[in-house]
Amino acid sequence: MTDMGMKVEQVLHMVGGAGETSYATNSRLQEKTMYRTKPILDNAIEEMYRTLLPERLVVADLGCSSGPNTFLVVSEVLGVVGELRRRLEQKPPEIQFFLNDLPGNDFNNVFRSLERYGKKIEEEKGELLVPYYVVGVPGSFYGRLFPCRSVHFFHSSYCLMWLSQVPQGLESDRGVPLNKGNIYITETSPPQVVEAYQEQHRRDFSSFLKSRYAELSVGGGMVLTFLGRKKQHPALGDLSLLWGLLAEALNSMASEGVIAEVKVDGFNLPFYGPSMQEVKSVIHDEGLFDLDQAQTLEANWDPFDDSEDDLAFDNVANGKNVARYIRAVIEPLIAHQFGDAMLDELFLRYADNVSKHSLKAKTKFTILVIGLKRKA
Amino acid sequence: MTDMGMKVEQVLHMVGGAGETSYATNSRLQEKTMYRTKPILDNAIEEMYRTLLPERLVVADLGCSSGPNTFLVVSEVLGVVGELRRRLEQKPPEIQFFLNDLPGNDFNNVFRSLERYGKKIEEEKGELLVPYYVVGVPGSFYGRLFPCRSVHFFHSSYCLMWLSQVPQGLESDRGVPLNKGNIYITETSPPQVVEAYQEQHRRDFSSFLKSRYAELSVGGGMVLTFLGRKKQHPALGDLSLLWGLLAEALNSMASEGVIAEVKVDGFNLPFYGPSMQEVKSVIHDEGLFDLDQAQTLEANWDPFDDSEDDLAFDNVANGKNVARYIRAVIEPLIAHQFGDAMLDELFLRYADNVSKHSLKAKTKFTILVIGLKRKA
Repeated sequence: MTDMGMKVEQVLHMVGGAGETSYATNSRLQEKTMYRTKPILDNAIEEMYRTLLPERLVVADLGCSSGPNTFLVVSEVLGVVGELRRRLEQKPPEIQFFLNDLPGNDFNNVFRSLERYGKKIEEEKGELLVPYYVVGVPGSFYGRLFPCRSVHFFHSSYCLMWLSQVPQGLESDRGVPLNKGNIYITETSPPQVVEAYQEQHRRDFSSFLKSRYAELSVGGGMVLTFLGRKKQHPALGDLSLLWGLLAEALNSMASEGVIAEVKVDGFNLPFYGPSMQEVKSVIHDEGLFDLDQAQTLEANWDPFDDSEDDLAFDNVANGKNVARYIRAVIEPLIAHQFGDAMLDELFLRYADNVSKHSLKAKTKFTILVIGLKRKA
Repeated sequence: MTDMGMKVEQVLHMVGGAGETSYATNSRLQEKTMYRTKPILDNAIEEMYRTLLPERLVVADLGCSSGPNTFLVVSEVLGVVGELRRRLEQKPPEIQFFLNDLPGNDFNNVFRSLERYGKKIEEEKGELLVPYYVVGVPGSFYGRLFPCRSVHFFHSSYCLMWLSQVPQGLESDRGVPLNKGNIYITETSPPQVVEAYQEQHRRDFSSFLKSRYAELSVGGGMVLTFLGRKKQHPALGDLSLLWGLLAEALNSMASEGVIAEVKVDGFNLPFYGPSMQEVKSVIHDEGLFDLDQAQTLEANWDPFDDSEDDLAFDNVANGKNVARYIRAVIEPLIAHQFGDAMLDELFLRYADNVSKHSLKAKTKFTILVIGLKRKA
């Protein structure tokens, strides 16, 4: 009943369309983060542009999704380059944007909203707008996506915590699930499970760096933002709690016979929130990039809670907001394992769990932001 | 009631998905033509590759659609370049393919079939396979789609007979439709209508050439295949007949009150089948390309009729096949003007009209194939 052979590439995608449960209407957390990482992104683009002064600039966004955030990077780069080339009195370059995501992403929606976006940006930027072209690139960023030295700058936001696959080794030799009752690393996960996750992350991030190194031109760079953790041990921190509360909802449904227990036992997320130390160690071992920036941010679980204090304002709303946001991200993976019919019930229970927890403590995501420069 | 303001970019697209009426299952005509134009395409690619010997080759297919033909050009280019670089003992280049179509095209379907295609081509080509990357480009090829000098080779098959818009000037100054009862140029169309179509084609094809000239690198070229006509006057030939039989079906439905007559009177296709002479004249006037190849082919209307004789084998099947094929291409345009409800009835009547006509004479498309080289 386990599904270790599931291809994440074929199943993982944000919920398409623009309905209430879609990613497009539930992506405020990512949007907020984008604004906070803006100075790092702007500096990196500026430095790259000043160094290369290319006639044609190629920028790729890895994990562009389909929603209001899809064009944020496009706007940001157009803004920085447009202003800079005016100040430097350079001829406007042409910018080619490659928007990448897994093949299950709703690219039709992205492409159909492009004209509307184009009109908006034209009004906003006026004469400062430089000519630009947008294309879509389907595929996993854990492999090669572009020809050698054909990209100047990579950006990726809220994607690199997704692994290329559920780690192998989450079952005993006899096929018994080792991470029973869990769907991610928790304090009850045996050491083999923790190691399997860590090894999968190391291998994936290392493939990511190698591919991007090959694809970047000399002088190129990237800014990467993803969920991680502050504590040293992978079982500690908010992500274990976030997924733990979802596992709790699954377990309660299994104990009532609504879903099969064996399906829960065999379900593990292709997800890993690394510490900055782990990230730095892979970068160092590969030796392909200089680490230019490394910052750790925090964000409330509830994307609509903009306060900085330590108590949730409205714990019921809080639970609902978190559940809606997590559902938009994770629904296809859950439905693939458990079917469609249980989704509403699951996320009701999950909202309830989150809401109860938020009475005890306000929970926050840890967000890692790194800026990398390709070594010559 | 007329809809001259319709944006072809937003409405025109082949029928998506893979159902019985989809373009994907009704694109045999295009496939057959591709095989017949193969020698011209192969020669053009070979010559371009030999001249430039690029490390990275960029090839764009304009109007890739979504179906079994979408990857035909990819396969063809991979085959020619793979074999050639072996003979010339060159290092394999990397090829980047840009698949373009209007934003309404089903790119999701294209992207999701890419992995299956990748496995197939890997088995077929084995060691001769050169590394390649596929991306999608939404937009009208009557405008710019790529940065300057960023493409080595363009291909387009069965697209350039679609105009960027329904020609202006198909109404009198007082808004009276001039092409009443017709949806394309026929012998009853007044001269203003013929001129409006010709002018729109000239303007569109000229924009096409200018855009492609800017986008092609020095030494680059293109091969274009599209429907046209042999006779000099636009009202003569098979395309007037093809659309005339569809207009007949619309008129009969209007006379029975099934659809509004005023809607038929205001409906004209954004379509023009030029003569080779007209095509050559635009190329000459623009002065940007050398005409390397110019061939005229013929193909039976019925994509499943592979015979070369002059009588339809089975006129009922013939009518059905043509109607199904034409529906896959034109359904969105018809539905935009008349609604969904009348579609089945319309194409039944159309099949009948085609079938009756094919008892009298076997009808053929005229296909123009041109090879162009960018002037330095």
